[in-house]
Amino acid sequence: MSDVTDKRLRRTRRLSDERREELLRAGVELFSARSYDEVSIDEIAAAVGISRGLLSHYFPSKRDFYVAGLRRAADDLLAAVAPAVRSTAGDRLRAGLDAYLGYVETHARGFVSLMRGGIGSDSEVRAILDGVREALTVGVLEGLREAGVERPSLRLAVRGWIGFVEAVSLEWIERGEPSRDEVAELARSQLLAAIGG
Amino acid sequence: MSDVTDKRLRRTRRLSDERREELLRAGVELFSARSYDEVSIDEIAAAVGISRGLLSHYFPSKRDFYVAGLRRAADDLLAAVAPAVRSTAGDRLRAGLDAYLGYVETHARGFVSLMRGGIGSDSEVRAILDGVREALTVGVLEGLREAGVERPSLRLAVRGWIGFVEAVSLEWIERGEPSRDEVAELARSQLLAAIGG
Repeated sequence: MSDVTDKRLRRTRRLSDERREELLRAGVELFSARSYDEVSIDEIAAAVGISRGLLSHYFPSKRDFYVAGLRRAADDLLAAVAPAVRSTAGDRLRAGLDAYLGYVETHARGFVSLMRGGIGSDSEVRAILDGVREALTVGVLEGLREAGVERPSLRLAVRGWIGFVEAVSLEWIERGEPSRDEVAELARSQLLAAIGG
Repeated sequence: MSDVTDKRLRRTRRLSDERREELLRAGVELFSARSYDEVSIDEIAAAVGISRGLLSHYFPSKRDFYVAGLRRAADDLLAAVAPAVRSTAGDRLRAGLDAYLGYVETHARGFVSLMRGGIGSDSEVRAILDGVREALTVGVLEGLREAGVERPSLRLAVRGWIGFVEAVSLEWIERGEPSRDEVAELARSQLLAAIGG
């Protein structure tokens, strides 16, 4: 392959990657505002400003687009929570909860839709959701171990706590109360109780 | 309508109701052992010992059969937990948790399948699951109010705790440890912490 062809191919691939990235960002916004069933493939194409044909070049089906967008959203959520690790030990939990609840608040509809079914029987969707839970569990466990916390069934307690945070997040988003700070404080005190027992 | 015809009709209906009930019980057993996708309609008919045609007289589709069985399982779970109300105030939580975890253990595969997707995007399935969560939340709230427990966002804390119990139940069933008593104790201490904060 000549250098020129090689360069051209790489440039095309880069543009294609950028375009795909742009589409995914738009998809996350779209599915954050409304649920999977509410959004049609024509609407997706119109919202991102390309033809249905070109969209299907990047994503063969609505499901493919949704799953790719969900994977991006999962990465975004974990990326939002990650900097909390740099907080001092005492602030880390609070910073992580602020980041998590902030993401939930900004992507309320998409979060509710995912947690309450989305296309829940889909094994890829399930794997993405489990991946987020596992990453959060591992992150919290690392923080706790660094802080010298030890107790039997610590992993089980932390996994349960992630379930607690998901359930209160859903209830909070659907009821619109109490304040985000109160939810964070409830979750924080709950983890301290879970690891102290 | 003559008295004789009326009696005959009532008898036919009663037999039909009994048959339906019998099929549902078999369905709950079937879906408790394996997941929705694993069980075929032919297998259901064979397991309950009737023809596919007669099965479809009672339940037009596999989904109808699953949803009806799930509704029965939800009723069974709540019925299993209900007698805990008759325990003394101090034992009530422990008795309720024993009943819940006992049901989860006996119907492990069906519980995991339901919680991890089942046919999760189905709005009826979602409604049944939400109904169980709501009934449990209301039951726990009543118990707490009778015990004189009051705190802001009590409902939110209890709803979060139900999420905690679901998450630890799943993790417990999938890992096969620790013992049921330890899981119950973890959940019990977690609720006491949630309401004390």
